[in-house]
Amino acid sequence: MTNKMLIKNGTIFTAADSFSADILVEDGKIVRLGLGLETGSGDTVLDAAGMEIYPGGIDAHTHFALPFMGTVSADDFETGTRAAACGGTTTIVDFVIPAKGQKLAAAVAAWHEKAAGKTAVDYAFHIALPEVNAQVLAELPAVVADGISSFKCFMAYKGALMIDDDQLLQILRAAKEHSALVSVHAENGDMLTHLMKRFAAEGKTGPEYHVLAHPAEAEGEAAHRAILLAAFAGAPLHIVHLSCDEALREVAAAKLRGQLVLAETCPQYLLLSEDLYRKNGFEAAKWVMSPPLRAAANQDKLWAGLRDGFLQSVATDHCSFNFKGQKEMGKGDFMKIPNGIPGVGDRVNLLYTCGVRAGRLTRNQFAAVIAAGAAKIFGMYPEKGTVAVGSDADLVIFDPARKGEVSVRTTRHNVDYSAFEGQRLDGLPAFVISRGKVVAKYGEFTGEKGHGRYLKRKKFDAAEWCH
Amino acid sequence: MTNKMLIKNGTIFTAADSFSADILVEDGKIVRLGLGLETGSGDTVLDAAGMEIYPGGIDAHTHFALPFMGTVSADDFETGTRAAACGGTTTIVDFVIPAKGQKLAAAVAAWHEKAAGKTAVDYAFHIALPEVNAQVLAELPAVVADGISSFKCFMAYKGALMIDDDQLLQILRAAKEHSALVSVHAENGDMLTHLMKRFAAEGKTGPEYHVLAHPAEAEGEAAHRAILLAAFAGAPLHIVHLSCDEALREVAAAKLRGQLVLAETCPQYLLLSEDLYRKNGFEAAKWVMSPPLRAAANQDKLWAGLRDGFLQSVATDHCSFNFKGQKEMGKGDFMKIPNGIPGVGDRVNLLYTCGVRAGRLTRNQFAAVIAAGAAKIFGMYPEKGTVAVGSDADLVIFDPARKGEVSVRTTRHNVDYSAFEGQRLDGLPAFVISRGKVVAKYGEFTGEKGHGRYLKRKKFDAAEWCH
Amino acid sequence: MTNKMLIKNGTIFTAADSFSADILVEDGKIVRLGLGLETGSGDTVLDAAGMEIYPGGIDAHTHFALPFMGTVSADDFETGTRAAACGGTTTIVDFVIPAKGQKLAAAVAAWHEKAAGKTAVDYAFHIALPEVNAQVLAELPAVVADGISSFKCFMAYKGALMIDDDQLLQILRAAKEHSALVSVHAENGDMLTHLMKRFAAEGKTGPEYHVLAHPAEAEGEAAHRAILLAAFAGAPLHIVHLSCDEALREVAAAKLRGQLVLAETCPQYLLLSEDLYRKNGFEAAKWVMSPPLRAAANQDKLWAGLRDGFLQSVATDHCSFNFKGQKEMGKGDFMKIPNGIPGVGDRVNLLYTCGVRAGRLTRNQFAAVIAAGAAKIFGMYPEKGTVAVGSDADLVIFDPARKGEVSVRTTRHNVDYSAFEGQRLDGLPAFVISRGKVVAKYGEFTGEKGHGRYLKRKKFDAAEWCH
Amino acid sequence: MTNKMLIKNGTIFTAADSFSADILVEDGKIVRLGLGLETGSGDTVLDAAGMEIYPGGIDAHTHFALPFMGTVSADDFETGTRAAACGGTTTIVDFVIPAKGQKLAAAVAAWHEKAAGKTAVDYAFHIALPEVNAQVLAELPAVVADGISSFKCFMAYKGALMIDDDQLLQILRAAKEHSALVSVHAENGDMLTHLMKRFAAEGKTGPEYHVLAHPAEAEGEAAHRAILLAAFAGAPLHIVHLSCDEALREVAAAKLRGQLVLAETCPQYLLLSEDLYRKNGFEAAKWVMSPPLRAAANQDKLWAGLRDGFLQSVATDHCSFNFKGQKEMGKGDFMKIPNGIPGVGDRVNLLYTCGVRAGRLTRNQFAAVIAAGAAKIFGMYPEKGTVAVGSDADLVIFDPARKGEVSVRTTRHNVDYSAFEGQRLDGLPAFVISRGKVVAKYGEFTGEKGHGRYLKRKKFDAAEWCH
Repeated sequence: MTNKMLIKNGTIFTAADSFSADILVEDGKIVRLGLGLETGSGDTVLDAAGMEIYPGGIDAHTHFALPFMGTVSADDFETGTRAAACGGTTTIVDFVIPAKGQKLAAAVAAWHEKAAGKTAVDYAFHIALPEVNAQVLAELPAVVADGISSFKCFMAYKGALMIDDDQLLQILRAAKEHSALVSVHAENGDMLTHLMKRFAAEGKTGPEYHVLAHPAEAEGEAAHRAILLAAFAGAPLHIVHLSCDEALREVAAAKLRGQLVLAETCPQYLLLSEDLYRKNGFEAAKWVMSPPLRAAANQDKLWAGLRDGFLQSVATDHCSFNFKGQKEMGKGDFMKIPNGIPGVGDRVNLLYTCGVRAGRLTRNQFAAVIAAGAAKIFGMYPEKGTVAVGSDADLVIFDPARKGEVSVRTTRHNVDYSAFEGQRLDGLPAFVISRGKVVAKYGEFTGEKGHGRYLKRKKFDAAEWCH
Repeated sequence: MTNKMLIKNGTIFTAADSFSADILVEDGKIVRLGLGLETGSGDTVLDAAGMEIYPGGIDAHTHFALPFMGTVSADDFETGTRAAACGGTTTIVDFVIPAKGQKLAAAVAAWHEKAAGKTAVDYAFHIALPEVNAQVLAELPAVVADGISSFKCFMAYKGALMIDDDQLLQILRAAKEHSALVSVHAENGDMLTHLMKRFAAEGKTGPEYHVLAHPAEAEGEAAHRAILLAAFAGAPLHIVHLSCDEALREVAAAKLRGQLVLAETCPQYLLLSEDLYRKNGFEAAKWVMSPPLRAAANQDKLWAGLRDGFLQSVATDHCSFNFKGQKEMGKGDFMKIPNGIPGVGDRVNLLYTCGVRAGRLTRNQFAAVIAAGAAKIFGMYPEKGTVAVGSDADLVIFDPARKGEVSVRTTRHNVDYSAFEGQRLDGLPAFVISRGKVVAKYGEFTGEKGHGRYLKRKKFDAAEWCH
Repeated sequence: MTNKMLIKNGTIFTAADSFSADILVEDGKIVRLGLGLETGSGDTVLDAAGMEIYPGGIDAHTHFALPFMGTVSADDFETGTRAAACGGTTTIVDFVIPAKGQKLAAAVAAWHEKAAGKTAVDYAFHIALPEVNAQVLAELPAVVADGISSFKCFMAYKGALMIDDDQLLQILRAAKEHSALVSVHAENGDMLTHLMKRFAAEGKTGPEYHVLAHPAEAEGEAAHRAILLAAFAGAPLHIVHLSCDEALREVAAAKLRGQLVLAETCPQYLLLSEDLYRKNGFEAAKWVMSPPLRAAANQDKLWAGLRDGFLQSVATDHCSFNFKGQKEMGKGDFMKIPNGIPGVGDRVNLLYTCGVRAGRLTRNQFAAVIAAGAAKIFGMYPEKGTVAVGSDADLVIFDPARKGEVSVRTTRHNVDYSAFEGQRLDGLPAFVISRGKVVAKYGEFTGEKGHGRYLKRKKFDAAEWCH
Repeated sequence: MTNKMLIKNGTIFTAADSFSADILVEDGKIVRLGLGLETGSGDTVLDAAGMEIYPGGIDAHTHFALPFMGTVSADDFETGTRAAACGGTTTIVDFVIPAKGQKLAAAVAAWHEKAAGKTAVDYAFHIALPEVNAQVLAELPAVVADGISSFKCFMAYKGALMIDDDQLLQILRAAKEHSALVSVHAENGDMLTHLMKRFAAEGKTGPEYHVLAHPAEAEGEAAHRAILLAAFAGAPLHIVHLSCDEALREVAAAKLRGQLVLAETCPQYLLLSEDLYRKNGFEAAKWVMSPPLRAAANQDKLWAGLRDGFLQSVATDHCSFNFKGQKEMGKGDFMKIPNGIPGVGDRVNLLYTCGVRAGRLTRNQFAAVIAAGAAKIFGMYPEKGTVAVGSDADLVIFDPARKGEVSVRTTRHNVDYSAFEGQRLDGLPAFVISRGKVVAKYGEFTGEKGHGRYLKRKKFDAAEWCH
């Protein structure tokens, strides 16, 4: 016997279309869209009159339970995915980060273990490659076959995760061969190291120096270089957490040349600025992340980049650390502040209010940047990323009339502060649905631990992008 | 009693989505999309197994029954829309072109008269503005209210249709005020005049001089100027029949600056080159149009422009003249060759074969450039331009297995040659459906004269484009 | 018997070199440069110890005794060249401006008559071409043969001096054929007309609207178009009185493409800003000129343009009108304010203080932009524009220790205000020498009316620029 | 008693000026320029009637007696400077290249020892910095004080000379502090390493793979990065042996932004192309150098770069190895071919014929790129680089009527082949004069070993460039 749900009277928005229709869900899949649909007794019925129905959010950049900088990120797969659900996100993609020398398979297994049975929504994995050698290259086909078709490379974190251009070229070529996509953290690690050493030598240790040690020029340079190397390798490229106009211009220039370069930005770069580092004393540590917040003038550029298609998605880079006990590890030395902010539960709400309602994104663009973009880039479409017959019934149903506010008191992150505290919200998700289950209502979690499933992602096929 | 049609087993492609679903149509509207839909006795059922279903094509640039250069274009609204139907196009937008001094309302009435009761598919109008004065400006609100929300301006045809920059600024400002969109024919009319006078003085009268008198630089310059004037006026801009990289780069640069500039190209610029002018003697007159065919190197640039979103649609600029008796008027003087080619019946087929099948466009991009783009730009969405609940059941259903060839013998244009004669087609429209009626099957017209309705188009609202 | 002068102990600066040497002059020519030169009794000896010797200034853009906008410019060839001499300028190039219908030869003759016997320094002519027709084109070779090898075209002043792009192409081609150089006043006259009509209709008549009616976009657009037309014609181009970054970027882009585009700016654009229009009531009329003063941010760009070689010279566009009685004609209608400012006597001083002493120009660059650049562009080199054996002994000898101030009380212009009133001067010309005659000492005129000679300029040969 | 020379009847060309004058030289200095100069009995008189007199050439990039890749370059300071003299070059600047760990002072001393008493013309030194550490940084002020005010950094030769971006930033900052100029070898060493490893793994060992392992993209990328790092450090930058449009565009873009970036190219990049690698079997090894020869299309771009001032000088990177015995070390492994070509004796001749006579450079530009540019950039002006009173009498006097041909038989290099064999020469140096001594006549050496003196170069002062 099938499990049916009927969602009536809503208006549906996909990346391209806007239409009023009822949605019939069976066994977690959308099976019918139509006017005046009916259902049998015993089936769940949701009335979405006056509401806006979007594909469930996909956050393609999270770091749950990540050992990093001498501690472990505060949200694990349980708290992180619960917060995601409450905030309208029904799929997350976390980064497997192997230790140097560790077999990739072992790292993947460890990540499966962290996640299995704990997640409230579906999840998938990227893998980071902090080194390149024969063993790593030999393991890549198996990794891709397991549904991990994107490789993250770091051009920053010199001496730790950073690889050099020779290694990056090797990975780009291997990714192309195995139909995977290379994602880069684009900051010139040498420039950062240079600046951090100087500041250390000069006794400049406060968190306000973190941004000075991570200038936008370093991100622009790395973006330029990564794009050139990808062109040279004939490989597609994805740039994560793009934060500034310097990098955006490189991405746009590549698009003008016809190169396949994709990029994501994050809510923090769209909404917050480096001014936060200067007026908050050590509390600025809350926003210490890499890349850092930028000059406010970048924000309009990034919004325009989303609107005009140079940026295809917004992810959070959620990597939460408590201010007490964790961020405080960097008192007296900003280089010891664990990098990252919470956000997985805030992203969809922030983009709805500050994007759609503020006139910076159409509702279709909102559907694209919260869900469809990442689904297509990372091989999860059409199961995820749209509201269409045959797709998973992953939905976020916005009540545009309900107002709220971002606060540490109300988001479900397992961390002691909110990066967006006090931001007014103009419209809230009434229902968040994961494969036909209502996992959150107006911000309250109604799902269950373990509901989430692992998603094997498809390969990246440049031909599908006509490249 | 309702008129129902069920289209079963097809795969549907919209500008963003791809999914398998049956389509239920009632009274010309799509009312349901779903798996395993059923219908009652007496309803039409089409089996689309193995077929690809797209939104019906929209050709936003036709000139039917146009008095031009001392003759009248060969296809009228009857033959033109019948050819459109046979070729997968279910909506056309024709240009009302008033004479100087004529009231706009009179010109619009004349165009209505030409079309009324004759068309096989739905139709709408743009209006051209060959002069600007107090009367013209005063009439614009009424024109927009009548559903004609786009104004065409000519930067070429000096002494005839061409307006100057002062006038263009006036129209841009008026269009912005009245929520209409300005379309420009972007060629520097002074440059063309200069060259035509020179060639005339030098006795260079063959059709091969037409292209030399219409250099790509003239189009690039005019595009640059129109874009700058639009920016200065704070108005959106649409560029019609963009033919060359010189103009495309201006459009792309504007997008990088965040300006709202939209543009269409045509199949002839994507597929044919100026070499045709050089090897065919006077037969080259068949391809005399403005802008002319360009150097072949432009073609890849234009395809990339469609793929990457710098160009949003493909229209035909269909303006057919018989070679015998019409094109021949220009024997001995290329300036007297009536400008234009037939194409309304070929566009969708050409783009399917040379775009989708050749790997230059995804199926979603194909849906966008043949239909969704124009629908959104010209205020016809969501009635037209997509396959969604509530939309008109305007569909083109491709049988990818059927092969064909473009030929004057098979297209339904009322003209004695084909501009694309001999082009192999890899996939053909099995069914073309206009508001639930099958108007063509495998290229044979099955519709009826007068089925087509006039579409009042909505205003252009820049806020919907987040501008 | 020869007339000898020995200038001892100075330091000489040319466009490329800096060296200490004595200068021996015979019959107005430099015949020897060397250490420890000696001369005979009766010869003039100037001691330039501690002083800097530059080639005499060339102001390639003056309008003396010009009938314009219903009046005549206040400085004629007598007062204008006397002021030039006092201010370090030993050559001026004035514009012959024929009336429409007037034979060019007649206009040239009229200009010769205005100048003959009156000038204190040497002079040459450009010719403006306010219309293009067979007669005008036929006269050009004779004009060039008479030493007038540059043709000025106006893209502004619609309905008066403005020509269209067809005409501009004709002139570019004719200039190329006859080895002359086309100079353009680059503003889009249609845009200006559009704005002036609007302001008139809105009752905006104050001088502060002059700048709003002459936006930088209009200059950038015209520069772009002129450069493209010149490229199309294969002709070199010179842009006069370039005032803004919008136009400068077009010039620089052309240089990057390898095109031969030369340009001059003026002291007013380097030193004054549009703020003057807003804070002075009708007194702002003093600075009403076309192009107008620009936003202050342009100034650094223009200085950099001079330093980096994108701009080759600085001229004044001297066209002086008394505030009383002349500028006042535009009270109540800014369009009737005679356009122009005085400056021929200030240019060299302003560039020395604000260029050399302020660290924006090297002494060699100063020599280039006040003299060598114009001499080479306009066919007056090597007689003019350098300090070398065989050149005319036209020199401006700066005393870097002497300080002064620009003021209507001290400049020798025949006009009732100074555009640069109060500008402090750090260094002044001790001696100004024209063909071996001291025509000014520390700002006092010591020359004589009629000393100046007409200079027949050489043709413009693009091959000398390796184009 | 002074040593006098009079050069009569020649035409003199400097970077800015062209004039006819006699030149009087006393004790190696130019003391007088003038018409009809006379001299006493016993003085040397050269008749330069019909000849062109230029400043003696400066080759700012030589590697004499350089231990490199397991051998030593074939020309030492004796043979190299003798060839220079015969070829019109009167100053060379060689690179001191310390071993890692070696004190800079020791390396400088070693270079002095190689040169002292051996050179036919004057010489100066740059220093290369293959590593950065506290000792190196501490030694820099002394190096600058000794007249070595330019530091060479390698972005290529990974594992040997290459430094990373952190080190480059350190050197840029140190150079700025000590008023020195950083020169970079701009190739991305990681890319080269990547490609060389691949080719080695694939058994691709012939010299034709050298160019494939050194793609133009790698040079463009490194130029972009070096320019960005210099901007970040607020330091000027010089790029050596720029070979391709990819890098040239970066330099030009920097100039447009107002950044102080200087660059040299070499005759081989202006005149030879990568085709030589493909058609000569192992003989291609003769042209193995880094950067390699490029696609022929780059040549016009580089000539335009010189003409338009984006490139300021032409040096040779002379580093000669005999084909027999030295180049042959790389048979079977292109990575073992000693990199470099001879050229110090050919440069001035090649630029005269292929630049001046071919219409690509004016005679003034020729003076600039063979001499004045390097003199000013590297602190040797005005002693070197011009023909002016007070300057050293270093001159190359061209007889434009004499024809010749480049050949290993006639150049004076101590090496068994010529890189430009067979190039026709249209004009030859009749006399080459170093500080008043004729060191070569029509290619025959007339100087003496040990005549050359060490030049202490001045510091680099960005303020002199108005930066």
